[in-house]
Amino acid sequence: METASFDFGMIGLGVMGRNLLLNMADHGYHVVGFDKDQAKATSLESFATPGTTVKGVTTLAEMVRQLKRPRKLMMLVPAGPIVDQVINEALPLLEEGDIIIDGGNSHYVDTLKRIKFLEDKKVHFVGMGVSGGEHGARTGPSIMPGGDVAAWRELKPILEAVSAKVNPPQNEPCVAYMGKGAAGHYVKMVHNGIEYAIMQLISEVYDVMKRSLGLTNDEMHEIFKKWNEGEMSSFLVEITSEIFRKKDELTGNLLVDMILDKAGSKGTGKWTSQDAMDLPVPVPTIDTAVSMRDLSVYKDDRVKAASLYKPKIKAITKNKERIIDQLHDSLFAATIICYAQGLAMLHKASSELNMDIPLKDVVRIWRGGCIIRSSLLELFTTAFRRDSSLSNILLHRKTASLVKKRTAALRRTIQLCASARIPAAGLASALSYFDAFCSETLPTNLIQAQRDYFGAHTYQRTDKEGIFHTEW
Amino acid sequence: METASFDFGMIGLGVMGRNLLLNMADHGYHVVGFDKDQAKATSLESFATPGTTVKGVTTLAEMVRQLKRPRKLMMLVPAGPIVDQVINEALPLLEEGDIIIDGGNSHYVDTLKRIKFLEDKKVHFVGMGVSGGEHGARTGPSIMPGGDVAAWRELKPILEAVSAKVNPPQNEPCVAYMGKGAAGHYVKMVHNGIEYAIMQLISEVYDVMKRSLGLTNDEMHEIFKKWNEGEMSSFLVEITSEIFRKKDELTGNLLVDMILDKAGSKGTGKWTSQDAMDLPVPVPTIDTAVSMRDLSVYKDDRVKAASLYKPKIKAITKNKERIIDQLHDSLFAATIICYAQGLAMLHKASSELNMDIPLKDVVRIWRGGCIIRSSLLELFTTAFRRDSSLSNILLHRKTASLVKKRTAALRRTIQLCASARIPAAGLASALSYFDAFCSETLPTNLIQAQRDYFGAHTYQRTDKEGIFHTEW
Repeated sequence: METASFDFGMIGLGVMGRNLLLNMADHGYHVVGFDKDQAKATSLESFATPGTTVKGVTTLAEMVRQLKRPRKLMMLVPAGPIVDQVINEALPLLEEGDIIIDGGNSHYVDTLKRIKFLEDKKVHFVGMGVSGGEHGARTGPSIMPGGDVAAWRELKPILEAVSAKVNPPQNEPCVAYMGKGAAGHYVKMVHNGIEYAIMQLISEVYDVMKRSLGLTNDEMHEIFKKWNEGEMSSFLVEITSEIFRKKDELTGNLLVDMILDKAGSKGTGKWTSQDAMDLPVPVPTIDTAVSMRDLSVYKDDRVKAASLYKPKIKAITKNKERIIDQLHDSLFAATIICYAQGLAMLHKASSELNMDIPLKDVVRIWRGGCIIRSSLLELFTTAFRRDSSLSNILLHRKTASLVKKRTAALRRTIQLCASARIPAAGLASALSYFDAFCSETLPTNLIQAQRDYFGAHTYQRTDKEGIFHTEW
Repeated sequence: METASFDFGMIGLGVMGRNLLLNMADHGYHVVGFDKDQAKATSLESFATPGTTVKGVTTLAEMVRQLKRPRKLMMLVPAGPIVDQVINEALPLLEEGDIIIDGGNSHYVDTLKRIKFLEDKKVHFVGMGVSGGEHGARTGPSIMPGGDVAAWRELKPILEAVSAKVNPPQNEPCVAYMGKGAAGHYVKMVHNGIEYAIMQLISEVYDVMKRSLGLTNDEMHEIFKKWNEGEMSSFLVEITSEIFRKKDELTGNLLVDMILDKAGSKGTGKWTSQDAMDLPVPVPTIDTAVSMRDLSVYKDDRVKAASLYKPKIKAITKNKERIIDQLHDSLFAATIICYAQGLAMLHKASSELNMDIPLKDVVRIWRGGCIIRSSLLELFTTAFRRDSSLSNILLHRKTASLVKKRTAALRRTIQLCASARIPAAGLASALSYFDAFCSETLPTNLIQAQRDYFGAHTYQRTDKEGIFHTEW
């Protein structure tokens, strides 16, 4: 019989699971990976750093046998029914105190169901978000565990070891306990919603640069490179710069020009929007990112519409430098507004769904490893450390001063896009969110009047408490 | 024993149920209404037109006993578990061939469950949308039944009698079969989504008029009144005009100014957005209407933000007449775009959810009685009669020419709002939807590049079929 000498087991050796496991091995942990796909299991060791202890197996039982107690197993399998299958397969093999982690992009509602299902099974269950893509998984992702506190204490050393680190030489690990219940997956979902929104904004800036300013990919590479060296430094700006200079191996053109403009999605952005509407909390720029991806897929209709309406994109030939600076400031302000929407959603969900999400830890562990890491997260960390109950980051004085300085640019960009026929859905939604958020009074009184007029839905008054109805 | 001499029974004598029932009585039907609330049951007859046959009862059994076979019962009770309670209570009292109608705003997913549950129960079940508010219910609503075809045939005479009529002297009834399964409630849901969007647009135009142009309620009353007499004639424009001149009985001020700017909602707009994301189909102006209602509720944050950012709304003192005309054209174009989004959603849902929704009948029965009735529906009816498979009304040549003429105004309004600090979330989303819809190529290729860069999510190419991944 084999001895139980391994520290951690990974179920699912796709590129994320494999890389995260090898990352653990690099930090001195003895790890075992399981995949039913024999090729994945047997090739695992060949990817490992020499001198590390990594083993691939093709049955779950074989893996479980080799794990020290309490056993630590993590699933990185596609979200959905497969997660339940794996749990049901693993349960008979596990013992009291063992920990099973779902590290995939499960919807938090499913995670809640699994927590309930496993409640009396004596194993610990942890819903955990992992962000950083395949590269991040290998070298240091941002890790968002939630739920079972005892399990978190047990997992903390290994997760801190493998996570991204920020602020050398302190090397603060990008992992923390995200709150009760399904908080880990909830925070990861909102992370992805913010990611969708920022990607939409960048694509709109690219659209202005390409279709209206007529910039080349080389020029855009340089611009985004420069932007990434300044206050807007972020992973998404950085890779955007890289993308613009990648050659296509098939044609020799630049690759970005060969990619079809139909966007895919895995659902986390959609869930963010749908769940925000249930809370309810407004995240219009995330909604816009979702709907614009959806619209991109209706290519046949768009081609027909283009031929029917024959829109002429207005070419801008003057003051390009000034407009590029204006786009920078617009993107910067709108990006802050995206974070504001996502963080306000977490603030509301924290109490509404009884998760006690520590926002100061959320922004702290997003500083490194994850897709939405940016220098802004350092500022937000300061803000939430000072006031952990901040309901909206736009109410933080220093953040406000950053936004304030750039809204004029954002206004001009919206004007430019409106006249140039560039669809600036995300940027426009960020501006209107901001302007509505800063409006002590909104014209919603008219909507309430209409609702009461046709549906007797009642209204509140400005001058006294109560619920009122008028026979209009 | 009483004889079964009544034609129709209504369960739930709230204002909608009562009014619809009295409407039936006005058309010569003998009707009985049931409500557990004795006051509602006993007062029913007092609301009836003299000479009509109307009876109120306080038990379901009493009502069922008095109905001719096949019995026709309709529930107008709050959406949710109460509907199931009523069904379960009614079932033992009913016989083969009887028809039970859910006329409330049930979510179509619940309706599907009920259809399944009642499948082998031998009674017919009809999920049916009713729009028109309390007044419409009394004098002629737009009625959207779906599902059971045999039941529809049975109900057709009475529903046609009570529905709104358009185009005298033909008097075309505003009721038709909306498709299979839960199509009735689905169509009503999307109707309400469009309603949310148009109300948001009107509120934004009001915001410009009030906060930037400084118009009085009297002036706005006159403007909307005039608008309602032209090509933009619609129920919502009409009641908006009326609202501006309604006096507040408590203070003597105009009532609209006394209404608090926190918007309520009953969920149908939210469902539209959430379900659109599931299809997926983009309805960004509906999404925006939902999120702006949600934002309106965060009044405390807005007040704080107003004091922190001190926004100054830019007053416009010149060319007011020209800007009012521009607002007219902007609202008209954006309203068409709202209908386009909603109808495109129905087009997609029709096939995706296997409902076979006849769009030409949908727009035909929306011409009268319902909240979103407008002269535009006549145009859309012509469009779908000519091409029932039209995927987007913006692709209809005559509609396109209406929009085309007004997009310049919409662009100027977006520019005006951006500089004046008026949040024009809905108008801006309509414009960016339009500009994206007319874009043969969108910048989504960059999003696909980013997704493949950090997550190996793959992409398609413009020059060949297949799924590709690049090691960036």
